[in-house]
Amino acid sequence: MTTLNKDLQRERERCTFDPLELTHYFDGSAEKTALRREREEYFLSDPDLQDDLSAKYKSHKEVYEDAVRKGCIVLKKVQDLQDSGRGSMDLFSEVLGGMLGSAILRDGNPLTLHYVMFIPAIMGQGTVEQQGYWISRAWTCSIIGTYAQTELGHGTFIRGLETTATYDPSTKEFILNSPTLTSYKWWPGGLGHTANYAVVVAQLYTNGECKGIHPFIVQLRDENTHEPLPGIQIGEIGTKLGMNATNNGFLGFKSVRIPREHMLMKNSQVLEDGTYVKAPSDKLTYGTMMFVRVVLVRDIARYLSKAVTIAVRYSAVRRQSQIKTNEPESQIMDYMTQQHKLFPNLAAVFAFTLSAAWIWEMYNNVTAELEEGDLDKLPELHALSCCLKAVASSDSATGIEQVRLACGGHGYMDASNLPGTYGLVTATCTYEGENTVMLLQTARYLVKTWRQAINGEPLPPTVKYFANAARGVKQRPWKNTLTCIVCAHQAVAAGKIRLATENMDRRIRSGMSQEDAWNHTSIELAQAAEAHCRGFIVMRFTESVKSLNTVSKELHAVLVQLCEVYAIYWVLQRVGDFLRFSCLNAEDVPSLQKCLEEALLAIRPNAVGIVDGFDIRDEILASALGAYDGNVYQRLFDEAMKSPLNQESVNKSFQQYLKPFLKSNL
Amino acid sequence: MTTLNKDLQRERERCTFDPLELTHYFDGSAEKTALRREREEYFLSDPDLQDDLSAKYKSHKEVYEDAVRKGCIVLKKVQDLQDSGRGSMDLFSEVLGGMLGSAILRDGNPLTLHYVMFIPAIMGQGTVEQQGYWISRAWTCSIIGTYAQTELGHGTFIRGLETTATYDPSTKEFILNSPTLTSYKWWPGGLGHTANYAVVVAQLYTNGECKGIHPFIVQLRDENTHEPLPGIQIGEIGTKLGMNATNNGFLGFKSVRIPREHMLMKNSQVLEDGTYVKAPSDKLTYGTMMFVRVVLVRDIARYLSKAVTIAVRYSAVRRQSQIKTNEPESQIMDYMTQQHKLFPNLAAVFAFTLSAAWIWEMYNNVTAELEEGDLDKLPELHALSCCLKAVASSDSATGIEQVRLACGGHGYMDASNLPGTYGLVTATCTYEGENTVMLLQTARYLVKTWRQAINGEPLPPTVKYFANAARGVKQRPWKNTLTCIVCAHQAVAAGKIRLATENMDRRIRSGMSQEDAWNHTSIELAQAAEAHCRGFIVMRFTESVKSLNTVSKELHAVLVQLCEVYAIYWVLQRVGDFLRFSCLNAEDVPSLQKCLEEALLAIRPNAVGIVDGFDIRDEILASALGAYDGNVYQRLFDEAMKSPLNQESVNKSFQQYLKPFLKSNL
Repeated sequence: MTTLNKDLQRERERCTFDPLELTHYFDGSAEKTALRREREEYFLSDPDLQDDLSAKYKSHKEVYEDAVRKGCIVLKKVQDLQDSGRGSMDLFSEVLGGMLGSAILRDGNPLTLHYVMFIPAIMGQGTVEQQGYWISRAWTCSIIGTYAQTELGHGTFIRGLETTATYDPSTKEFILNSPTLTSYKWWPGGLGHTANYAVVVAQLYTNGECKGIHPFIVQLRDENTHEPLPGIQIGEIGTKLGMNATNNGFLGFKSVRIPREHMLMKNSQVLEDGTYVKAPSDKLTYGTMMFVRVVLVRDIARYLSKAVTIAVRYSAVRRQSQIKTNEPESQIMDYMTQQHKLFPNLAAVFAFTLSAAWIWEMYNNVTAELEEGDLDKLPELHALSCCLKAVASSDSATGIEQVRLACGGHGYMDASNLPGTYGLVTATCTYEGENTVMLLQTARYLVKTWRQAINGEPLPPTVKYFANAARGVKQRPWKNTLTCIVCAHQAVAAGKIRLATENMDRRIRSGMSQEDAWNHTSIELAQAAEAHCRGFIVMRFTESVKSLNTVSKELHAVLVQLCEVYAIYWVLQRVGDFLRFSCLNAEDVPSLQKCLEEALLAIRPNAVGIVDGFDIRDEILASALGAYDGNVYQRLFDEAMKSPLNQESVNKSFQQYLKPFLKSNL
Repeated sequence: MTTLNKDLQRERERCTFDPLELTHYFDGSAEKTALRREREEYFLSDPDLQDDLSAKYKSHKEVYEDAVRKGCIVLKKVQDLQDSGRGSMDLFSEVLGGMLGSAILRDGNPLTLHYVMFIPAIMGQGTVEQQGYWISRAWTCSIIGTYAQTELGHGTFIRGLETTATYDPSTKEFILNSPTLTSYKWWPGGLGHTANYAVVVAQLYTNGECKGIHPFIVQLRDENTHEPLPGIQIGEIGTKLGMNATNNGFLGFKSVRIPREHMLMKNSQVLEDGTYVKAPSDKLTYGTMMFVRVVLVRDIARYLSKAVTIAVRYSAVRRQSQIKTNEPESQIMDYMTQQHKLFPNLAAVFAFTLSAAWIWEMYNNVTAELEEGDLDKLPELHALSCCLKAVASSDSATGIEQVRLACGGHGYMDASNLPGTYGLVTATCTYEGENTVMLLQTARYLVKTWRQAINGEPLPPTVKYFANAARGVKQRPWKNTLTCIVCAHQAVAAGKIRLATENMDRRIRSGMSQEDAWNHTSIELAQAAEAHCRGFIVMRFTESVKSLNTVSKELHAVLVQLCEVYAIYWVLQRVGDFLRFSCLNAEDVPSLQKCLEEALLAIRPNAVGIVDGFDIRDEILASALGAYDGNVYQRLFDEAMKSPLNQESVNKSFQQYLKPFLKSNL
């Protein structure tokens, strides 16, 4: 029945390495591959979690209702895993936020924030007593919570949040209010109609003074009837580009009273008499945000791998036009322009995955040091996590659109699952820190460390390369080698941060305030941060591949080719920077272009093998174009036949509207 | 009630020119502005054409049914306009395909192809008798048609279409068949459940020989019952990234017989005995495709103007963070990075509009000459229309996403109407000629004319600039002037086409076939075509602004600034090309960057005035973020309140799924 497409079969036969080896490399080991597959089977083979009708045909309300149904089943299964000792924190992020989760609930899960934000917020900001009480209720899902920070008027600038929590010592309560329309909470997932509790971030007022933003646990709905409690105005914010089952909500308060004990007081406290006791350090709250960004980079790489798998397989199956007249139509992957759209994105999956693995290790080291009170490496980790999140999300979103467009009209269909994948990934450009804001955070760190470099001070590892540039060391003449290309990427980053810093200083010298000078230089600063990040990614990719000695030489050769494609592609994409700031000369560019073309051609015969190695189940791909068997056209047709409009030969609109109109013209 | 937002009001007060003057300039004259506004009022004030509930909340089926209802009303109103002598061909493209049409039916109109493709196909390819019969039935909407060319397996390569029309001289009929699944028609708008006729493109077989693709009029459904006729399998293809009301359909034939007279025989003919009479020239069919592309460039520019209007107004209203501590939060448009996202796209609206106007005039001249049998300028027009369509659609789609992301989280909401606008525009990257295919068509023309330039032969106007480059004439030293920048853009285009041609020739000399050499050089060829197009656009923008003497000096100053932003932005985006191929030196780049920043700052105070000058009604913007009054937050809230989920305080999923799940954990 499910015969393999002949073109795909031939691609697999001529693959020069074993895709399963790549799978194990990606998962970390053969054991981890087995565990992942077991977990996927556990969730995806459950008949209650199957999609009978694409969500795209349903109304918004039906989509939500089905998401709550499935969300409860998922949580139940997670609890069963935990009860049988097979649970882990990793499980939550994978099933609720990761690629597996998005396979079960393609438009998002309204219960995600309960585990991903509500519980961590209590863990991170509650006292031991608060944790004891709330975590046990939350962990067993006796209550369902969310995390309400962003407001209609404030996202990036959280100091500007307007919701107030005013302490009333006479009753030992906080009174929550939404003084303006813009102060309404807006965006929290599951807030609309799902959660009955929330951690709410509000400006704390006590003894007539504002003490800045603090977190409070607030009950939103009656635990039994689910009706909103008095003084609480709540609902969902409406449909979006994607993630339409996440039930993002709004929330307004009219004099809602909560007990003093509902302020999360691990850091700062309000005593019974209203006395405010300040937290010893602010930096500790950095932790959670960095954790989310670090995990996000890995997740984004996996979404990109999904899109690339779909596009590569389709490009092997799809035949269109003839490269040579009198020959059969060509597989579209044989067109160089198609390879140029697909393979740099294929390579980017590896680039981001390897960077994500490295920063994950760094994160674990830094948090271990943090617990011993050592904050030294925090700024470096922060700077790197910001730019990596920005570049990975932006490149992946762009890349997904690029490979979608490379699938022509069929890529525009929801049945390709490329539009849905884009909808998820483009959101990551905005949430957890808007990308330009992120790049400028990194830039601030780079300016600071660049000044250190100029002064000959010691430099943290990820900006050590500044030293040579600061001392004016020239690169040796250009060679088309990875070693030279990595150095050139770093020379570009250093050159751009040097120039931006100089331009900013010049503005300050000419009488501009520091802040205005920063703003006026911010285009260059953001670009410098991107160049720094690119240099890091290329360096990590190159180093990882060079030091790899546990894989076969066949797989190693493929990894080197992918690394070359990525490294050279980005030189050519930013060739002006390299001509300005590295040893690359205009005469070197044609041979570099040729190197890129050769690397693309080298990857071509293994492209299907590489995406097979990603080992993404058909249920996760959820794509008529990308399924393992390559039966693209039959699957497109089968998907179309599921449309409710196709269940009847004549739609009622004919009798109702069209016929009377046509008749009136006879 | 509808008070103006104070920030927007201040922006308008400090605008240095009269936006109405810009409106008249854009429309062509004050009279044309009045006519356009009257037309918009006629359609948009009709209560039956108002949106009571956003389509996003409806099921797919409801969306379609409402689209048929509205589509009939629109056609009726068009007919009324015609009957009263106020109709025009322009009216169709505006109301059915253009920005006004997309305001009435945001997800597309299932009846569009009747006027935009079905009638033109009969006009262009039918004999006088066929026109007489079919056009009168179609014009009065006694029948509803569509145009069925693309198949599941073939889009770009139309010679590969598989549907067959075999002539049977015994009955004087054609027998239509779909021999494979991939031969099913796939994509035609309105084909699913709306049209009852179609022009079908099929491989003609007569006397046992295949004569290539030809058009046939085929009845699909009973005119009275709308049931599909025997042998016809028909339905819709399912949901897509956007345009979900266009009812794109599939169509398969099983021995469907149609009379010989249903073949459209203006060009080629099949006589009663089956004798095939070939068309005198193939080139004539170019016309329609070019017409569509030429119109498309103008439409795309208008969609971009809509997105930019939304983003610019929102960026004036939205305040976030402080540029200077101790000052109020800044309008986000005051951030240079925001200006860098918005204003090059604002300038692109003008760039594309002016190029569209020029090619429209060229198109009219060429078609006039065509009717006198003069085909000389056809290749030049074809080459220009291909690359303009590709660059305008690709840049605008990218630009819309860029300005959407610049609106942060609120840009992700459907209520911003930015996702919907992107959905419409990104489709234009694929339809009417996939963009890479288009660029390579242009490249073919450029290679040919470059060889002419090398040989010193005369050159058509749009590639006349090749002459200097071919003779090796060096540009004078760089100056930051528009004259110099236009020359540099042309030097880049010529340099890139020269290099690509040389690389291709080198490959041929080394033994590669011409076709393989073309393919291996196609990355560079496509990029060269893009550079040529960019040079044309920058040149047109500059020339138009320079020669403009009918506008006030205040408006003229603004147009010059916009032209500078566009021209410089694209030098810096492709700075490597300019360093390689123009007289720009690395030392010139910092001052050019400064010029760009100054131009952005110069536009800043007039940005709201400029988008006001686009004069896009709130109903067309259909955006909570972009409305004229700037009441962003109230509108976002009001839109959210329309969600069906917000009509009840507790959704049934609580009792059904959530409560049992929570209970089981108590």
